[in-house]
Amino acid sequence: MSEHATSTDVLVIGGGMAGLAGALALRENGANVTLVERAPEFGEVGAGLQMAPNASRVLKRWGLLEKALEIGVQPKHLVFRDAVTGEELTRQTLNGEFEERYGAPYVVIHRSDLHRVLLEGCEAAGVKLVNDVTVESVETVGGRGVAHTLAGVDFEADVVIGADGLRSTLRPLVADDEPVSSAYVAYRGTVPITEKTPKADLEDVIVYLGPDCHLVQYPLRKGELLNTVAVFKSPSFERGEEQYGGVDELEAAYKDCVPAVQEALKNLATGIRWPMYDRDPIENWVAGRMVLMGDAAHPMLQYLAQGACQALEDAAALQDATVGTVFTGEGIKPEAWDVALREFNDVRAGRTARVQRTARVWGESWHVSGLARTLRNLLFKSRKDNNFQYNDWLYGQDGDGVPSVTAKRVAEKAAA
Amino acid sequence: MSEHATSTDVLVIGGGMAGLAGALALRENGANVTLVERAPEFGEVGAGLQMAPNASRVLKRWGLLEKALEIGVQPKHLVFRDAVTGEELTRQTLNGEFEERYGAPYVVIHRSDLHRVLLEGCEAAGVKLVNDVTVESVETVGGRGVAHTLAGVDFEADVVIGADGLRSTLRPLVADDEPVSSAYVAYRGTVPITEKTPKADLEDVIVYLGPDCHLVQYPLRKGELLNTVAVFKSPSFERGEEQYGGVDELEAAYKDCVPAVQEALKNLATGIRWPMYDRDPIENWVAGRMVLMGDAAHPMLQYLAQGACQALEDAAALQDATVGTVFTGEGIKPEAWDVALREFNDVRAGRTARVQRTARVWGESWHVSGLARTLRNLLFKSRKDNNFQYNDWLYGQDGDGVPSVTAKRVAEKAAA
Repeated sequence: MSEHATSTDVLVIGGGMAGLAGALALRENGANVTLVERAPEFGEVGAGLQMAPNASRVLKRWGLLEKALEIGVQPKHLVFRDAVTGEELTRQTLNGEFEERYGAPYVVIHRSDLHRVLLEGCEAAGVKLVNDVTVESVETVGGRGVAHTLAGVDFEADVVIGADGLRSTLRPLVADDEPVSSAYVAYRGTVPITEKTPKADLEDVIVYLGPDCHLVQYPLRKGELLNTVAVFKSPSFERGEEQYGGVDELEAAYKDCVPAVQEALKNLATGIRWPMYDRDPIENWVAGRMVLMGDAAHPMLQYLAQGACQALEDAAALQDATVGTVFTGEGIKPEAWDVALREFNDVRAGRTARVQRTARVWGESWHVSGLARTLRNLLFKSRKDNNFQYNDWLYGQDGDGVPSVTAKRVAEKAAA
Repeated sequence: MSEHATSTDVLVIGGGMAGLAGALALRENGANVTLVERAPEFGEVGAGLQMAPNASRVLKRWGLLEKALEIGVQPKHLVFRDAVTGEELTRQTLNGEFEERYGAPYVVIHRSDLHRVLLEGCEAAGVKLVNDVTVESVETVGGRGVAHTLAGVDFEADVVIGADGLRSTLRPLVADDEPVSSAYVAYRGTVPITEKTPKADLEDVIVYLGPDCHLVQYPLRKGELLNTVAVFKSPSFERGEEQYGGVDELEAAYKDCVPAVQEALKNLATGIRWPMYDRDPIENWVAGRMVLMGDAAHPMLQYLAQGACQALEDAAALQDATVGTVFTGEGIKPEAWDVALREFNDVRAGRTARVQRTARVWGESWHVSGLARTLRNLLFKSRKDNNFQYNDWLYGQDGDGVPSVTAKRVAEKAAA
């Protein structure tokens, strides 16, 4: 449109996990991809991240799993304990049968490490990465997406991917909603593992479940770092205070917990508090030639550890929806984008809505007290290792698992 | 004491299940037993009663099980369903492995039928049964129990058994407490099973679990009668009203339940409402030569269906504690009663306290809603038929099961 506009096949807005994954997926299909990021440098804040098989399968597809495994850790077990008694409630062994069933490993990795793996993947594949670009609005004009930036320079592309996170600038194009506060606040921290670090469970992902609080702990960087996340319900949030969840509340929240949990609080970086938000699911992520993905489309609470995982699934689904349609052996067919976006949206919205909703209930079940806690503990204890009935829908490859565009197409062709 | 006193070895006060069972147990040991009952006739109100193996084993000991089986029903399964969805949550098959494990059948029987079996047992054994006697107080004088009656006639005996139920006149001798209202009200009913009776589950004990309500249904009298019990939380009780739990509340309580449950409400006799009470457990049931048993000692909520069962266990334990001590081959040794009562109290109080407390929590778990209901349903559904982990402590014969005086004596002798 504008004479000075940068033109490309695909414009990705946002350089977090979702944006990088989306850019890489479409670049793999042969698109010229430009990714713009508001921050002056690419990078990730935060601590560790759990990459379940449904996400590590996507890295595998792109040939990036080896790099992730070099820097990440494959924990031996996922263990749930009662935070008040310390009692083990249930465990899942993460290698062997689990890994075989889901076709990829369970990996824990520093957020910045995974981000770098994806960033280097984009660079190597030839994604054009641009910093310091703040997109203020996107519109669709003449069948192309146009992004207007703060600097006054426009970007235009056949499609614009809105991967700009929880507080997405582009989401208002499809939904009139706001982030939903869960009243919970997280503190995170990574500390070196030394000889003085308590030896218990250092090879596992441990989740301590307490009334209105929980604590997660696992190793990072080949076992050199210990990652700790403490999440608790803020009484001052409930009182309506704006600056809720201070360090005083952190300590009070864990006062009834076993010493192992109270000790672990010392590993937290208390300078940053992370209020926990999500949004209600929405059905439509598409406005003209703009489509949302990742947290911009389906921000979720962290209880299933699926935020980044679902962004990777999005990218894989976008890749599948456009290969052979937009990106064909005979070149790019931009007119196929409308159908491809709709297919991507259709195949992903139901699944991510289920993950969003399940994360809320799953989190609630972690924080119960009284009779509900008794029932929760009995339920967890009744579960045996390698009982996959609660995992298959999330980590599985077929059936009730990840809906794949390919499977949908096969089914439609069979029905036709 | 009084010149006109009736003197006997054992005086039982109360002609309900507990009193009859206690009288029979001691008569079996050779005591002269007089049982006095306030009502002008012996009998039982109410509808059906579930007799678990821990109770039917006691009938078997006295040679009364056959009579109970002639008139009762052996249900095929105990089935739990969600009252809102109708979904089956778990089931226990009651014959086969269950009956073998616990050494006696699960029987459902009309309360009046079991009462008659015990009454005829007492008559045949030679228990002296006296109606129309209201005991006003009991004291211990010169090593004998003396009961003062409304009519002015005293009864005296080596021991007085207080089996006078929830609102026991004798309990104040050992405890300064009151019945505890659970805010729940029951309606009961028995109707003939006809061709029009819905056929579903007619051979089973069915428990429908709903929010703040439940409904139990099973056959009686060789399958001729259908027994229904509806129990719900009374909103007017919560508001502090004295006459709570009316029929209007009954219907409202089940409004979200499946049609099978709503239909079953028609089988209830709405003329009598039964507010549900228990008491907190107490440790001591003995005052001089008076001892409590049955509901007078440990009234419990009905959720484990153990009220009558625990009274039968009491009687068996009393029999065990006195055989060879009070009642010996060389005659009766009244001086041994003090030790025998203490042993009976010791062996029973811990167990019945556990049943009382567990009945409360178990009932709570039936009436939950929201997330706790989800957890409860998942927990119940995770349980397999013939998984006895939650049954052994209650129905079992050894170990964590029914504490028997004999086992205790053997252990003490072995330790000595």
